[in-house]
Amino acid sequence: MSQLRPAPMRTRLADGRELLYFDDAPGRTNGAVDHRELPPRADASEIRWDPLGREWAVIADQRQGRTYRPATSDCPLCPSRDGVLTEIPARDYDVVVFENRFPSLSERTAERVAQHDDPLHRSGPALGRCEVVVFTSDHDASVAALPPARMRTVIDAWAHRTAELRTLPSVGAVFCFENRGDEIGVTLAHPHGQIYAYPFVPPRLERAAHSAAEHAAATGRCLQCDLLASELAAGERVVVADGDWVGYVPFAARWPYEVRIAPRRHVGSIDELTDTERDGLAEVYLDVLGRFDRLFDTPAPYIAGWDQAPNGPLGADWHLAAEVFTIRRAPGKLKYLAGSESGAAVWINDVTPERAATALRAAGRAGSDGTDGREVAGPAVRP
Amino acid sequence: MSQLRPAPMRTRLADGRELLYFDDAPGRTNGAVDHRELPPRADASEIRWDPLGREWAVIADQRQGRTYRPATSDCPLCPSRDGVLTEIPARDYDVVVFENRFPSLSERTAERVAQHDDPLHRSGPALGRCEVVVFTSDHDASVAALPPARMRTVIDAWAHRTAELRTLPSVGAVFCFENRGDEIGVTLAHPHGQIYAYPFVPPRLERAAHSAAEHAAATGRCLQCDLLASELAAGERVVVADGDWVGYVPFAARWPYEVRIAPRRHVGSIDELTDTERDGLAEVYLDVLGRFDRLFDTPAPYIAGWDQAPNGPLGADWHLAAEVFTIRRAPGKLKYLAGSESGAAVWINDVTPERAATALRAAGRAGSDGTDGREVAGPAVRP
Repeated sequence: MSQLRPAPMRTRLADGRELLYFDDAPGRTNGAVDHRELPPRADASEIRWDPLGREWAVIADQRQGRTYRPATSDCPLCPSRDGVLTEIPARDYDVVVFENRFPSLSERTAERVAQHDDPLHRSGPALGRCEVVVFTSDHDASVAALPPARMRTVIDAWAHRTAELRTLPSVGAVFCFENRGDEIGVTLAHPHGQIYAYPFVPPRLERAAHSAAEHAAATGRCLQCDLLASELAAGERVVVADGDWVGYVPFAARWPYEVRIAPRRHVGSIDELTDTERDGLAEVYLDVLGRFDRLFDTPAPYIAGWDQAPNGPLGADWHLAAEVFTIRRAPGKLKYLAGSESGAAVWINDVTPERAATALRAAGRAGSDGTDGREVAGPAVRP
Repeated sequence: MSQLRPAPMRTRLADGRELLYFDDAPGRTNGAVDHRELPPRADASEIRWDPLGREWAVIADQRQGRTYRPATSDCPLCPSRDGVLTEIPARDYDVVVFENRFPSLSERTAERVAQHDDPLHRSGPALGRCEVVVFTSDHDASVAALPPARMRTVIDAWAHRTAELRTLPSVGAVFCFENRGDEIGVTLAHPHGQIYAYPFVPPRLERAAHSAAEHAAATGRCLQCDLLASELAAGERVVVADGDWVGYVPFAARWPYEVRIAPRRHVGSIDELTDTERDGLAEVYLDVLGRFDRLFDTPAPYIAGWDQAPNGPLGADWHLAAEVFTIRRAPGKLKYLAGSESGAAVWINDVTPERAATALRAAGRAGSDGTDGREVAGPAVRP
């Protein structure tokens, strides 16, 4: 399905926010204009340093007014049509990326928020960028059921935004992610993801970077490469191992069903993936989401996020990976983050990773060749 | 209300688990015997090291069978009565602590789970202890509405268990916490809390210990003491400041409504609190919970956890604090941990700490002297 990809068409919304159309094939989008009257943007989020927890928190109270579970007819991610002007001026589209109207992070906070360096109360503008990635114009579609060619367009959009946002002077890391399901608090049902360009390196990436550096110093090798090789050798936690990509349940998984999707090649971020790797990722990503949906009685609420090389020395020699996980632990039961997780940061996982991998292998793949996944994944078959 | 506290009465349940009765006044409990036939305990949880995230996860899959939202008549935390034998043999009680029947952590895992030291797959038995703390025999009570004398008994139970569990050779830290509300996934409505004695120092405590050590090295002072003094001086985030205790919203709060309750005196754990400090804590703790409940239309789902001095060098010079927070961000709206929080560990808080403190002050106190809380809390009144 690989082909020459058209460059995105850029435009601006009525309040000046950027919007980009990414098309499955050339010649799709036109230059529709946003005719709404929007109030001026007043982004004023702040980052604050927690001197005990050693982490930044983003304080973004103007977001309380954001769009919350609108009626389908008022969906701001649907195409504009006669009498209903949405966030997307076009009457149809493939994939659209635009700046969030209620951003937690924005370069424009620099104009409104001062920096304070009191060691007990460090704070500053919440610089960066929050973008929305709309995966389809079909409000009722499911990401897992998108055609691979469309998923490939989404991947190209991630790659484009990663490469561009990384160059913003304030940005520490670009995080492409997707939340799906009421159970995760998703306020818009229309299939979409988000991109946060953080003004610092997020704690999970920072810890992974330190781990990787220590491992490299001790062994001369990449930690993700070593994990991938050892998981393929063991096999019991592997869910898919197709071409350029491997999906496995991490040995110390925090969530009941969690899959790390990593490229076999040592590559740091989505924009560095080859054409073939992107095509392969489209297939594997949809395959994993499909397995999640087939685990239980109802579609899985899930979070999927891309750990990409952060800017600066922490990003040296990074190995790209996506973490995809569901909070559903059993039919009708969710995993909640209660005292141990939220209070002490100790995750209790009620499903062993080996059992999770077995279930995810058994969840097969839609439109597959009839294998149950276990045979495809095991190292004995694909050493 | 202070008085000589009776020592707890100890007994064992039918499967050998320990149970302790803590009474508001001497002479309350009798030696009721557990007449149930219970299967033998088969605790087999495991801890596994995540070499990327640098954290232990607890893998506890046998807990999937734990009691899940039983009918009120089947509540395992109610007193035993004719024909219904619960986890608590007595026909009535004040406060009861017993070992969890479905523990995530247990000394008995040593018999069943081996230790592995492969650097990519480190694991071992999930040693430690999980205890349940039942706050009242009244199934329908609310913790916030308990009499202060009962809350004092709960505090004595926390103190007793902290002092005892800390001496277990496997234990790194004793964490007393409470989850309240369906929205947090609480599976038993009967008012209760939990105590986890972890076989390691939990990540949040570990980070706080490093922060405190760095601050002490730079200034010669305690970080929590300095935070407390600066919050009292600023006043805008102070919610309560009564006698020995101060409750304030942290400057970089992660949750929409979050209060840190800390003793003015530099003390490391609950068992070191004086008689007067415990009485004062009972009042302040109930006061804060009452304010949470009065914030919105319905009782607040909340988590409250005690950060106590961990064992070992990390616990040196620790300053005790409770973190109490709700996930309700507005009437009918919850704060969910989605991509940014769960995937990147970056919290986005939609309510400024100053606004949260103002709302919590305005939420007043039940049965108070008529002040609105703001006057009581502000440094101008109580410098």
